[in-house]
Amino acid sequence: MRIYADNAATTSLSPTAKAAMMPYFDDIYGNPSSLHTVGQIAKEALTDARRRIAAVLNCAEAEIYFTSGGSEADNQAIVSAARLGERGGKKHIISTAFEHHAVLHTLKELEKEGFDVTYLDVHGDGLITAEQVRETITDETCLVTVMYANNEIGTVQPIAEIGAVCREKGVVFHTDAVQAAGHLYIDVQRENIDMLSLSAHKFHGPKGIGVLYARRGIRLTNLIHGGAQERGKRAGTENIPAIMGMAAALEEAAAHIEENAAKTAALRDRLIAGIGKIPHAALNGDAEHRLPGNVSFCFEGIEGESLLLLLDDKGVCASSGSACTSGSLDPSHVLLAIGRPHEVAHGSLRLTIDHNTTKEEADYIIDAVTDVVASLRAMSPVWRDLRNGKRDYII
Amino acid sequence: MRIYADNAATTSLSPTAKAAMMPYFDDIYGNPSSLHTVGQIAKEALTDARRRIAAVLNCAEAEIYFTSGGSEADNQAIVSAARLGERGGKKHIISTAFEHHAVLHTLKELEKEGFDVTYLDVHGDGLITAEQVRETITDETCLVTVMYANNEIGTVQPIAEIGAVCREKGVVFHTDAVQAAGHLYIDVQRENIDMLSLSAHKFHGPKGIGVLYARRGIRLTNLIHGGAQERGKRAGTENIPAIMGMAAALEEAAAHIEENAAKTAALRDRLIAGIGKIPHAALNGDAEHRLPGNVSFCFEGIEGESLLLLLDDKGVCASSGSACTSGSLDPSHVLLAIGRPHEVAHGSLRLTIDHNTTKEEADYIIDAVTDVVASLRAMSPVWRDLRNGKRDYII
Repeated sequence: MRIYADNAATTSLSPTAKAAMMPYFDDIYGNPSSLHTVGQIAKEALTDARRRIAAVLNCAEAEIYFTSGGSEADNQAIVSAARLGERGGKKHIISTAFEHHAVLHTLKELEKEGFDVTYLDVHGDGLITAEQVRETITDETCLVTVMYANNEIGTVQPIAEIGAVCREKGVVFHTDAVQAAGHLYIDVQRENIDMLSLSAHKFHGPKGIGVLYARRGIRLTNLIHGGAQERGKRAGTENIPAIMGMAAALEEAAAHIEENAAKTAALRDRLIAGIGKIPHAALNGDAEHRLPGNVSFCFEGIEGESLLLLLDDKGVCASSGSACTSGSLDPSHVLLAIGRPHEVAHGSLRLTIDHNTTKEEADYIIDAVTDVVASLRAMSPVWRDLRNGKRDYII
Repeated sequence: MRIYADNAATTSLSPTAKAAMMPYFDDIYGNPSSLHTVGQIAKEALTDARRRIAAVLNCAEAEIYFTSGGSEADNQAIVSAARLGERGGKKHIISTAFEHHAVLHTLKELEKEGFDVTYLDVHGDGLITAEQVRETITDETCLVTVMYANNEIGTVQPIAEIGAVCREKGVVFHTDAVQAAGHLYIDVQRENIDMLSLSAHKFHGPKGIGVLYARRGIRLTNLIHGGAQERGKRAGTENIPAIMGMAAALEEAAAHIEENAAKTAALRDRLIAGIGKIPHAALNGDAEHRLPGNVSFCFEGIEGESLLLLLDDKGVCASSGSACTSGSLDPSHVLLAIGRPHEVAHGSLRLTIDHNTTKEEADYIIDAVTDVVASLRAMSPVWRDLRNGKRDYII
């Protein structure tokens, strides 16, 4: 038996998305830039996918740029807004301390160039407020970039409110919606989002494809120069099979978004309640404003990697934090940002379920986590010290 | 009936490559950065693909970086070498006038930053010489980037000789091998290649995936910052299905490279002979040093786009030049580089066949091109003027 509870790292490809891709691996293999029939059929597919994705996000087709994934979209959004700001003499950017590294590392590069970046403090509940953004915007601010939902602790930011503040102040607002797209209802008009990144493989679409939405009037800076694809803003032959798979996956997710979210959130809350019974365990992030599929805990006296390996032995695929940094020995910057001390940040567990997860699987996970935490604690010198009063409990 | 003769734009996915991808769209969907079993199975696939691709190119696994395609690989190679050069005070780059736009546009960006780029003149036969490179290298030169084979006219450059000159002079040598990989035998050691770009969909692999080979010791500059994938040099969840498809396609191509090249070149020469019988038609590029599948002609008194559309009506999928610039009204920079005047550069035809092309298809193409050229000329005022002696023939 195997239970996959790591959907924030990647998801299985939906049969609908896979079926949408297959014709483009067979007969319809043309390059959309070719003038002949084989190319033009591919071009029609490209146009169709762009239209359908724009419809889901409530934007214009011309505002959709296909990228190789969420990281590329984040990088291009931030670099583009920075270059626009620079031209107007504005070199201040606002972000948060717990963004994905695709955002944070891009910002670090801009800091080396002389940009001034304010990383907003994240509250203990894993949330920031629009008021924090308002207080931080100056006449020099060219970009606010705040993630829609956090990839480790699942907290969902007040995006529409932040968007309204940015619109009022005339500052470009980008959101990394990689964890949110396909899971939460997103409307770029209603939420005043100027730029948004998403990645298909996070919502049961294929890997290697993403979208950068950029509001009309925002001139993008190329990361990849060359051919005239994507209105000259992203060179490289379009990955039509993946684009068609992404369009199908996003439409499928959008069509079922409320029922899937409700079903998933119910199991999420069951997991939170069950795992919450473990002594000295604490939920990371606000219980209410969180992704329907995210369960994130810290456990006192536990080392995260052992926890994962023992859970894997029991057939449960989970993670400690972000998959992208799983090789690192440093504690998660997200958990540190919400105020978890180093020693408990090391004992974290992220379970990310989805609408395919069953109640039986959730109950199995609760039992497995309870067992594994108990057996790890039985071997843990830290836990012994805690029990003997030689150390103080943090949680 | 439809004959696909535009393999330089993109190729059909080989059944072997498709079969290699399928398991990764189904059960093996993990993120290679995840520590659990599902992730580790994906990681093993990634390692296996890297090893197999390195074996084909004759380099080390650690020298293979997966990118989203050839354009990204070209951009990253050139930017990386430029940054390394800059640090050492060297800001001169040598390239050629007929590179792909992924190279040329990246170089234009570097020129804006103060880099000095020499674009070597291409001889009328579509070739440059190692001697030209040697004469142009100065103490300031940090990079030589010369394409392995041209995408429009198919000429194959003396890469090993250019590599030897660069090695002798201590200058980094990059080659855009997007059109050559899978079609010509490439050995990065033997040919003294420091960096090389390839794209899977040009050799019957999937779209959206490519390789940047960079010799150990060449520190890459990120285009995409974020997670620690590709040894920290290219962020974003690895596109495992596409990577596995690329490895399978490259191995398949390598295993049959001589027989495929011989078969394809024989049909290419049949096409060149047949089309060459059309009056006032000229082969673009050297007849000998060219890709096995490339046939490129200019016709006097013809407009390229009409030629393509009429050929498409007859079921022949061809192109005038590069697919990436097919929307442009400008004549091909490649044809201008080899000295074709504007008026004949507009009347160009590129047929790119492969080992799947049959003799019957080649003969059909010859007849179709002959007919279409004749009927277009019958309607062409330019052709009338040429026939009446009011204009001089160029070809």
